[in-house]
Amino acid sequence: MKKRINLTLAFICLSVIMTMAQNLKSFTLEDLIPGGSNYYNCSIKNLYGVQWWGNQCILPDVEEVKVINPKNGKESVLFTLEDINKGLETSTVKLRKMRALYDVRFPESERPIVMLMQPEYIVFLNFETKQVERLIALNKGAANVEVSPNHQAAAYTIGDALYVSRNENASQTTLLSPEFANPETAPKDHDLVYGQAVHRNEFGIMGGIFWSPKGNRLAYYRMDQSMVTDYPQVNIDTRIATLEPDKYPMAGMTSHKVTVCVYDMNSGKTVTLQAGDPTDRYFTNVSWAPDEEKIYVIELNRDQNHAQLVRYNAADGAREAVIYEETHPKYVEPQHPLTFLPWDSSKFIYQSQRDGFNHLYVYKTDGTLVKQITTGNWLVQSIVGFNEKKKEVIITSTEISPMQSNTYAVNVNTGKKRPVGNSEGVHSVQLSADGNYLIDNYSTPEIPRNIDIVATSNSKVTKNLFTAEDPWKGFNVPEIETGTIKAGDGKTDLYYRLIKPVNFDPNKKYPAIIYVYGGPHAQMLSNNFRYAARGWDIYMAQLGYVMLTVDNRGSENRGLEFENCTFRQLGTEEMKDQMEGVKLLKSLPYVDANRLGVHGWSFGGFMTTNLMLTHPDVFKVAVAGGPVIDWKYYEVMYGERYMDTPESNSEGYKNADLKQKAGNLKGRLELIIGGNDPTCVPQHTLSFIRACIDKGTHPDLFIYPGQGHNMVGRDRVHLHEHITRYFEDFLK
Amino acid sequence: MKKRINLTLAFICLSVIMTMAQNLKSFTLEDLIPGGSNYYNCSIKNLYGVQWWGNQCILPDVEEVKVINPKNGKESVLFTLEDINKGLETSTVKLRKMRALYDVRFPESERPIVMLMQPEYIVFLNFETKQVERLIALNKGAANVEVSPNHQAAAYTIGDALYVSRNENASQTTLLSPEFANPETAPKDHDLVYGQAVHRNEFGIMGGIFWSPKGNRLAYYRMDQSMVTDYPQVNIDTRIATLEPDKYPMAGMTSHKVTVCVYDMNSGKTVTLQAGDPTDRYFTNVSWAPDEEKIYVIELNRDQNHAQLVRYNAADGAREAVIYEETHPKYVEPQHPLTFLPWDSSKFIYQSQRDGFNHLYVYKTDGTLVKQITTGNWLVQSIVGFNEKKKEVIITSTEISPMQSNTYAVNVNTGKKRPVGNSEGVHSVQLSADGNYLIDNYSTPEIPRNIDIVATSNSKVTKNLFTAEDPWKGFNVPEIETGTIKAGDGKTDLYYRLIKPVNFDPNKKYPAIIYVYGGPHAQMLSNNFRYAARGWDIYMAQLGYVMLTVDNRGSENRGLEFENCTFRQLGTEEMKDQMEGVKLLKSLPYVDANRLGVHGWSFGGFMTTNLMLTHPDVFKVAVAGGPVIDWKYYEVMYGERYMDTPESNSEGYKNADLKQKAGNLKGRLELIIGGNDPTCVPQHTLSFIRACIDKGTHPDLFIYPGQGHNMVGRDRVHLHEHITRYFEDFLK
Repeated sequence: MKKRINLTLAFICLSVIMTMAQNLKSFTLEDLIPGGSNYYNCSIKNLYGVQWWGNQCILPDVEEVKVINPKNGKESVLFTLEDINKGLETSTVKLRKMRALYDVRFPESERPIVMLMQPEYIVFLNFETKQVERLIALNKGAANVEVSPNHQAAAYTIGDALYVSRNENASQTTLLSPEFANPETAPKDHDLVYGQAVHRNEFGIMGGIFWSPKGNRLAYYRMDQSMVTDYPQVNIDTRIATLEPDKYPMAGMTSHKVTVCVYDMNSGKTVTLQAGDPTDRYFTNVSWAPDEEKIYVIELNRDQNHAQLVRYNAADGAREAVIYEETHPKYVEPQHPLTFLPWDSSKFIYQSQRDGFNHLYVYKTDGTLVKQITTGNWLVQSIVGFNEKKKEVIITSTEISPMQSNTYAVNVNTGKKRPVGNSEGVHSVQLSADGNYLIDNYSTPEIPRNIDIVATSNSKVTKNLFTAEDPWKGFNVPEIETGTIKAGDGKTDLYYRLIKPVNFDPNKKYPAIIYVYGGPHAQMLSNNFRYAARGWDIYMAQLGYVMLTVDNRGSENRGLEFENCTFRQLGTEEMKDQMEGVKLLKSLPYVDANRLGVHGWSFGGFMTTNLMLTHPDVFKVAVAGGPVIDWKYYEVMYGERYMDTPESNSEGYKNADLKQKAGNLKGRLELIIGGNDPTCVPQHTLSFIRACIDKGTHPDLFIYPGQGHNMVGRDRVHLHEHITRYFEDFLK
Repeated sequence: MKKRINLTLAFICLSVIMTMAQNLKSFTLEDLIPGGSNYYNCSIKNLYGVQWWGNQCILPDVEEVKVINPKNGKESVLFTLEDINKGLETSTVKLRKMRALYDVRFPESERPIVMLMQPEYIVFLNFETKQVERLIALNKGAANVEVSPNHQAAAYTIGDALYVSRNENASQTTLLSPEFANPETAPKDHDLVYGQAVHRNEFGIMGGIFWSPKGNRLAYYRMDQSMVTDYPQVNIDTRIATLEPDKYPMAGMTSHKVTVCVYDMNSGKTVTLQAGDPTDRYFTNVSWAPDEEKIYVIELNRDQNHAQLVRYNAADGAREAVIYEETHPKYVEPQHPLTFLPWDSSKFIYQSQRDGFNHLYVYKTDGTLVKQITTGNWLVQSIVGFNEKKKEVIITSTEISPMQSNTYAVNVNTGKKRPVGNSEGVHSVQLSADGNYLIDNYSTPEIPRNIDIVATSNSKVTKNLFTAEDPWKGFNVPEIETGTIKAGDGKTDLYYRLIKPVNFDPNKKYPAIIYVYGGPHAQMLSNNFRYAARGWDIYMAQLGYVMLTVDNRGSENRGLEFENCTFRQLGTEEMKDQMEGVKLLKSLPYVDANRLGVHGWSFGGFMTTNLMLTHPDVFKVAVAGGPVIDWKYYEVMYGERYMDTPESNSEGYKNADLKQKAGNLKGRLELIIGGNDPTCVPQHTLSFIRACIDKGTHPDLFIYPGQGHNMVGRDRVHLHEHITRYFEDFLK
């Protein structure tokens, strides 16, 4: 069933965006694909750098930074580029002139300080006195820079080593990774990595440096991966090709070992959290207690079905208590650190899918559950912040629709929930320090982008900061509609997006292509502008293809059961759902069922190849990019969560191993990879090609030498020219 | 001008092979491609194992070995399989039963001894007494086995180490490579290689073990390649892909160092030939003096334009004298060891192209030239042997035609030359011990294969051993014709082969494909059966393509100047000649000049890609296999001979670098490689694909994972299905 957005229209085609075809421009891939020469002009514009400084809204530009009073929308110039550059000249060391003010940050909500990142220094400049107040030196090659909350220090990595800098003197930088003290004996080949994201960025891990709330302690990851097998990547750009080994723990194989260390800024001592055995676990979501004395880690067993929230003493690293435990017969996936209540440091919010949807639970630090404060068949997407006075936590959620993201204020004490802002579309919000105002950046199927200041008390827009124009104005944009169909289980609603060829003629027969992703943690359509229709889909609709995308079971924003029905059998349920999409296509009188294609990348490459081989009489042409072919070649963390190990789930691995189906290939299937893909390593696709050759079937292959998992820059345009040509050659 | 083989036919189409089309079978690739299920049945049959035992002709079969008297052709059974197996049972050690007698060898011309190779032993069995006379033990993994001329010992390699075995006791084997004595400290990764072919098999080098004529001394190569950069080949068949480094000295880069060692079987001492500096030279064509006291090496400078024939003392390795020197402004390419006259050990035959064609020169061991014994605008292809009584050397040469190989007897004293055998086709011959008879294995355009015993005195056939049937009898074989056109220089004759579509209709317009190799040391057409037409060409003619092949300047059997006009500019002259082939095609009324394709492998892949990019408006479709793209990625020995180094010939390398032309691509070009090609390493094709992407052009690519430079086995059939499909998709 298609989605109703206007009751006065017939049910069949309710969410259609129509454009008059006459005198309209046609798209090129340069318009529609990132990396294209006209892509910027065809993209929805945004404000860059808009942010809160305490309770005032900051609007940076090239030459000046404005401040806006959220109550009345009044704006004034806070400082100019000239002010800043004059201020930079007051420094005792030579600092670089700024050329634009987009990148300024306001680290102190109460003081007129801007933070500027320069290659050699972090600069704290008082824009009222126009004086440099403080410098923190950065050594050459510094990356993953994290400034302490009190702005007295910064931690950063150089290569795989970790440093902390406290002043403008680079030579006084402290090395926190002792093994790297002597360059001659320092670990090589990423055998040991400090201060960086571990566990391959799963479990919400984005980095490896965690400052305590007041900046007196620094927690960081130390990852020993000397025992992890290298994947032999090859660089062909050198005089003679060279090996670039890349640590890659494959499902069921030996994984790396992670510890969490805590450095005390005052004593200069380091302790390691005493996590004990087994060491082959995941140490996720490192969280500091507000008083800096305790540190919390959500620890997950290798099998990923038993999570423990563990409290440690930050002073000596002692393991004090397991605060909370969660198990699940399939998997537990902790993705959010603790959020302590600003008004009560003995309580924190814990996010869990334990009732089937991600919801908020208030716990005491002794592990006592105070209450579940959100509930329902929808999920909390993010905690935006608090209104301390009203004891409200501000969240975004899918309550209105899994296609949407809307803002709510939830009273932590009563659980009472009220919407903030409008009920349409997809919202991305920033909350003022007092929690009274949002910078509300959103789009709907009809609105490319609006950025408003919204009062959280009554949802009133106090100021419109920005309204984006339709970047495709003047182009012949195809009709885009959405709706729902039933999943392969016969009961679950699935959302789809259907794009019709431009200058659509219902009496014609068009070829159709399914664009698919289908894996966890992603959703291909939502209620933002034009239902998030992809540029290439638009281009293909212009060439005369019907384009369909269905978010199958296993995908994001629909809850745990919707996602974990794919457990130990990736591809199986997902394909059933995609075949319901095929039924939809075949039901359309204007679709030529003999000319069906499918395309997808990564998990979508797996789905594409699998669909082509499992339903060889349905699909005529397929292009699979960077596909998983055999889950045993995928990494431990993601792979074992959904598939367990090749040893414990040999049947599941075999069923999902596309090499087993290589002999089924009938139509045209091209596989495309980045030559140095570090995510779905080339072994996937090359072993599949080998299997097809052995079975006497004939896939096609293309490689982007030197590229990784996704093509970027100009290569992305070339890629889509290539994919388009393949469908034009064989499906048209 | 086309070749005349029958004066009664018109000049236009004189060498046509026609077959009636009605009721004839069509070929499949299984019939025509090596590895195909019916390839054996469609191949020209041969006799396996036919050989001389002294002056008697031996004809082995599964169950028995016959002996034939060459004078009268009378044949009788020499021994049976049962005889041999009975004999094997007489051994004190357990020997394997033989299942067939094809592999027997007759090492002693005067005695009834057969040599049998078994995995653990070399067996010498007296087939008259039916007793095992001698065993030489082989250790597990033995390769490159060379039995000494007196049959008292065998040298062989295991891995990169060299051994010599003298009796049936494997534990008494002597290790000749001392660095490999301790497995823990033994060199790894082929850093040091003993007893194997060096210099990447160039300069006629086929192996690295050289027994002295009586078996008292053993010369062998020792190659240190620890200083050579590895090419990082990757094996994807392991649980996780693994690195398989391969020593690959690229043009202009550091090469390996070779020495020649001599082991004395009696004293057990080893000496190294004292070749002196520079060590970065080529040590080729190791030759023993008949008395075993001297050893000769043809030494070539790295620049390959100065060869020295050097005599060494085999007892102490002392460098005694430079016997002969040859220089050339382009290159000198020694490819033949010395051939000592059987009746005068103070004289040897030296082969040289110094007058423009490979000819024979008699030298004294002191370096005095006795005389040049062959001369003319044709070349000696091989020295077959001697008729000692008549003082004749028996050779094969191109004297009749560069498309042929015929036998001659040349009187060494007088230079008087007379033909032996018929004047047609391509002959491969074996000479009896006394030089009075040939086993003459030949084919002509009309004769698939004949094997005769021929008297060298009068060319009379005393016995026909075998006549092969036409293996394509009953198939609809297309018309095949040959002729000559003028080269790009306007004067040189080039040979071509043209295959017309089956059921040819002169009023139709057919697409045409040029199959090209074009590099040195190869010739694509000759006067053997059906002018050596390739199976795939036949298949494509059946699908309706005109197939053309031209042996351009630079190719084999035409002399030095014909070959070396390509020096420092590979591709340039060769392409001019191929474009003369295009002119021929365009002159044919039945060829559609808008549908021209080109295909080639290796050097032919280089030519194909180059033609496609240099003449983008001429060729519509091309398939290039295992191509050289940039000669700086090719190896030192072959690469520098024809191109010098990238440093000394930067202009030439740049002009021949196909990446520079990547932006020219207009039609469809597919590159196909073996994923682990050790000859044209994957860097060639991958860097070209990268260059095309950067230029925004669109080549296609296919890879045979795990394969080397040429596809073998079933993959070869798959490859030709793939190539065929590409032309059918885009040229038909």
